[in-house]
Amino acid sequence: MTDIDRIVDLAKTYQQSLPEPPPPSLFPSGNKIASFIDHTLLKPEATAQQISNLCEEAAQYHFASVCVNPVNVPLAYSLLKNTDVRICSVISFPLGADFPTMKAFQTLSCIQAGASEIDMVINIGALKSGDYGLVYNDIHTVVENAHHQKAIVKVILEMALLNPFEKIMACLLCQEAGADFVKTSTGFSSGGATVEDVELMNRIVGRKMKIKAAGGIKTYSDAKSMIYAGASRIGASAGVKIVQEAVS
Amino acid sequence: MTDIDRIVDLAKTYQQSLPEPPPPSLFPSGNKIASFIDHTLLKPEATAQQISNLCEEAAQYHFASVCVNPVNVPLAYSLLKNTDVRICSVISFPLGADFPTMKAFQTLSCIQAGASEIDMVINIGALKSGDYGLVYNDIHTVVENAHHQKAIVKVILEMALLNPFEKIMACLLCQEAGADFVKTSTGFSSGGATVEDVELMNRIVGRKMKIKAAGGIKTYSDAKSMIYAGASRIGASAGVKIVQEAVS
Repeated sequence: MTDIDRIVDLAKTYQQSLPEPPPPSLFPSGNKIASFIDHTLLKPEATAQQISNLCEEAAQYHFASVCVNPVNVPLAYSLLKNTDVRICSVISFPLGADFPTMKAFQTLSCIQAGASEIDMVINIGALKSGDYGLVYNDIHTVVENAHHQKAIVKVILEMALLNPFEKIMACLLCQEAGADFVKTSTGFSSGGATVEDVELMNRIVGRKMKIKAAGGIKTYSDAKSMIYAGASRIGASAGVKIVQEAVS
Repeated sequence: MTDIDRIVDLAKTYQQSLPEPPPPSLFPSGNKIASFIDHTLLKPEATAQQISNLCEEAAQYHFASVCVNPVNVPLAYSLLKNTDVRICSVISFPLGADFPTMKAFQTLSCIQAGASEIDMVINIGALKSGDYGLVYNDIHTVVENAHHQKAIVKVILEMALLNPFEKIMACLLCQEAGADFVKTSTGFSSGGATVEDVELMNRIVGRKMKIKAAGGIKTYSDAKSMIYAGASRIGASAGVKIVQEAVS
């Protein structure tokens, strides 16, 4: 039995009966929630000035990272290299329909420019075509390249496009490939993060992986729900508002 | 005066007074319109089966090309290599916010896998930040790599995100960089092709470049308007319907 067959069998088991979630983590108090947030600006029309503002806010509020497109990594790095804010960039974003070699090249380029967190999109079409070997290989290639450079990898599953079995398979393939996080959504598809999806991810891989909720998280209340469901990272463009609501 | 300064001056002149459009081309009669259409499927969840169907339709109707994501180029090439249908793929799609080196790597990977038409997205943020040198260099890098391998380049400007001056600058930078086509839209942004934008592109660069209209073109009537406005290529997922309407 190949590894992939073993994963398919496990996914079928989980589809019948989900494992219990791991014990909950401590909820961050007050402005500590900032350390859970990737302060995000991925609009293609973002200007250098807007990226600079994002970085300034990130340093001021102590967000976990700024999440920017590859072309903005050098600017973000130049502004944040002497702070506690990491640089996160997105790979094959938001469609995920590139070859593994392209994703690896993008990953190394972003890390070389200063990124230490890599949010990659899976090959969604391959998952839906049942080509699980390609989905695994795609993730594993990025993880290997990133880990070798001491960067972490969050894998975006684009849950809104997946059926229940595909969601479970995607989580298990990420775990098998050694990724650090599973992430719900790009924010560019038909739906964003849901509490149900985060709970599902937490039950499937929450013992070994972390979870990032992203897409449509606009308020402290939204963020709180995601963290209670098992997320330890929130992707949002509304990070400043979320922190302000948390301390008010 | 650098080349970029010269282009900025020309764009300012054109903003005051647009050049006349070139003489209109012959309109394709009946099913000949198929040769104007890039038969397109770029949804990230597209399966191998759906890509196969797209290719089958393209061979049957004699579309100009199939337009697919990079990961689907090998399958499309294997199905269409003995037909008159070309393979078109998309680079840094749909955000365009990658480094020139990433775009070049993607371009060469797609061509090596069988693509002979490359639809790249410009660096929209750099255009809006006034970093015209980077916008030019980005396009030029892809064009050089593609032309060296005998592939053509269509440059997607994402017109819905640009102001009038940025639209003119983008067209002129594409022409200066030696690209073959300017293309209106990705189909993934806030707006698609408009007759007004195609007319503008035709006046600015229609003497030296071709124009591809894409995004929201769903009927023969839509396609006809775009061709009358100056487009010689239409990007659409509704190609079969458009041809059927043209001959009915």
